Amino acid sequence: MVPPAAQPGMRFAEIDTPALIVDLDAFERNLKRMADAAARAGVRLRPHAKTHKCSIIAQKQIALGAVGVCCQKVSEAEILVRDGIGDVLISNEVVGARKIERLVALAKQARIAVCVDDAGVARDLAAAAERADVTLSVLVEIDVGGNRCGVAPGAPALRLAQEIARSNALRFGGLQAYNGSAQHKRTLAERQAAIAQVAAQTRETVALLAQNGLRCETIGGAGTGTFELEAAGGVINELQAGSYVFMDVDYGRNKKADGGPFDTFENALFVLATVMSRPDDTRAVVDAGHKTLPIDSGMPEPYRRPGIHYGRPSDEHGVLTTDGPPLPHLGERILLVPAHCDPTVNLHDWLIGVRGLHGTSPVVETVWPVSARGAVF
Amino acid sequence: MVPPAAQPGMRFAEIDTPALIVDLDAFERNLKRMADAAARAGVRLRPHAKTHKCSIIAQKQIALGAVGVCCQKVSEAEILVRDGIGDVLISNEVVGARKIERLVALAKQARIAVCVDDAGVARDLAAAAERADVTLSVLVEIDVGGNRCGVAPGAPALRLAQEIARSNALRFGGLQAYNGSAQHKRTLAERQAAIAQVAAQTRETVALLAQNGLRCETIGGAGTGTFELEAAGGVINELQAGSYVFMDVDYGRNKKADGGPFDTFENALFVLATVMSRPDDTRAVVDAGHKTLPIDSGMPEPYRRPGIHYGRPSDEHGVLTTDGPPLPHLGERILLVPAHCDPTVNLHDWLIGVRGLHGTSPVVETVWPVSARGAVF
Repeated sequence: MVPPAAQPGMRFAEIDTPALIVDLDAFERNLKRMADAAARAGVRLRPHAKTHKCSIIAQKQIALGAVGVCCQKVSEAEILVRDGIGDVLISNEVVGARKIERLVALAKQARIAVCVDDAGVARDLAAAAERADVTLSVLVEIDVGGNRCGVAPGAPALRLAQEIARSNALRFGGLQAYNGSAQHKRTLAERQAAIAQVAAQTRETVALLAQNGLRCETIGGAGTGTFELEAAGGVINELQAGSYVFMDVDYGRNKKADGGPFDTFENALFVLATVMSRPDDTRAVVDAGHKTLPIDSGMPEPYRRPGIHYGRPSDEHGVLTTDGPPLPHLGERILLVPAHCDPTVNLHDWLIGVRGLHGTSPVVETVWPVSARGAVF
Repeated sequence: MVPPAAQPGMRFAEIDTPALIVDLDAFERNLKRMADAAARAGVRLRPHAKTHKCSIIAQKQIALGAVGVCCQKVSEAEILVRDGIGDVLISNEVVGARKIERLVALAKQARIAVCVDDAGVARDLAAAAERADVTLSVLVEIDVGGNRCGVAPGAPALRLAQEIARSNALRFGGLQAYNGSAQHKRTLAERQAAIAQVAAQTRETVALLAQNGLRCETIGGAGTGTFELEAAGGVINELQAGSYVFMDVDYGRNKKADGGPFDTFENALFVLATVMSRPDDTRAVVDAGHKTLPIDSGMPEPYRRPGIHYGRPSDEHGVLTTDGPPLPHLGERILLVPAHCDPTVNLHDWLIGVRGLHGTSPVVETVWPVSARGAVF
């Protein structure tokens, strides 16, 4: 593993680039805002660790009242449990003999839950759990508009829940009702419409399950774009938002009720880049490209540099251009807001925590490993 | 660091997914084809390690006759030198005091060269090299149509070369004349036009330097898309191609003279993914998304599965759809050809080398660390 680009105690100016920077002040405010919002709404918070892949951040979230964390992969859960996280939901399907063996082994060490959307997989989980002599908690994932994984709400969900409940080695834990495609609908009205559907379909399924004697201890879902709607909706009882800790350009494009940008959370994640070539007056080439800043959700944006744009990324370069203001000079360092925080963090081995980032003497306070970086299986 | 998804000796079917797979047979043929092409053309080969970031692969390239490797970052060079590579060109500008300190420290341990496109940076390099008591080899990067870094060919290149030659601590090593934007021009005619410009501007600059008593030991450039043109052109004397070891979807879209696909090299890199959800007949969800397969150059493609397409990627998922043939079933494993090999490799910690991948009993022969993964600074 490559060593970090900075050490605690260094001045901000001493950080080598490109480096992934956490504005600790904004980050801590973001954590607290979400914890407070969940507490006010009377719902549990189980933040998504897929965003940060960092056991230290997971511990901070739990210290502020989160009941545990979610993740998407068994390998992520293995690292979180190794690092002392005692309650992990894999908010995703786990398929295949080797993965299921690892999953049930993990359930010996911590409180583990997993999602299913297939009866055959539920039987595989039951058989492995029985062999390992553990009881595995299982949520039925319902497709509430994301059109990705999940069984249909209503009768198909009931049939799968009954299959789970019949097994001695599985415990029916409730429903997973997440609509990823709702998170980046730009207007509040669009998000409201999408989440109204989530709520209606989930409520109906919960009722059908109850009529059949099946209680949902957990009804999980919600992301950073919609958590306020789900928190207020009275159906979802566990919020799984992740991106709120860092924010990104893409979430910043969401609009609030008044049409203003979604600013409930602050940009707390940046890539610090250096201008390493200034061939002429039309461009400043920075040292951060695809291997530092993914573009699956568009281009990163220079932070508080109106009129300066990042574009033409290649593997190790990006090109800054201007609408008018002077371009940064050779050697100048610039903060870029990632377009999409999750895959950005997954490129980096270290999070450089800076205190007073936008003040007069920012300092590196801490360096956290991205513990589950590359944990994709 | 996450452990590998397989161990040597395992059968292919035992590899956990998603995993980055190297078809060792195709990979070895690719290595040999490029080595032979360079030898036939009488030019040196200095493959680009930015593609594979793997010291073991660099050693294999050198064993087949490469004079050394290139990389883009000081941190990559540090890892390559640590692992025994004795000759490394950083085919990129290095700016900033800390980076330059590390660069000259490295030049004490191995034959190191670097590119410059600015006289001030050349002076910084000279001062640091003098302090460290090393002689650093420096190439002048000229912009031959890529519109990224580099000084203009001709007089500006001469002025910078003279600045370098005046320094006791720097050695003028020649020219870097790479046009990245030429690599993926789709028709041979377009690539020929672009490389004709590279050749003309480079030849002119070499002549001007010679008239002023400056000899170019190295005239480096070329990529996988254009190396045959540069090798035949009589100007470039060091080929810097990288992607040829693996190939990808994007290079496969290039056309040869006869209009057929660019198949000089074989697809040797794959992401092995598993169908982990089959909600209905219209889609098969696989366990590989943005964190496994970047989409900066478009979508990855299922290998030898005509009519099956990968799309709608999210962080940990991709959705297979069909034009007609049956979709893979739940639990089925599928090989995906990455759209762009370099940033794909940079997501993974391990390359799983498989022998006989497309035969009847493929087996994991080796597992190589992506030694310089995440080495971006």
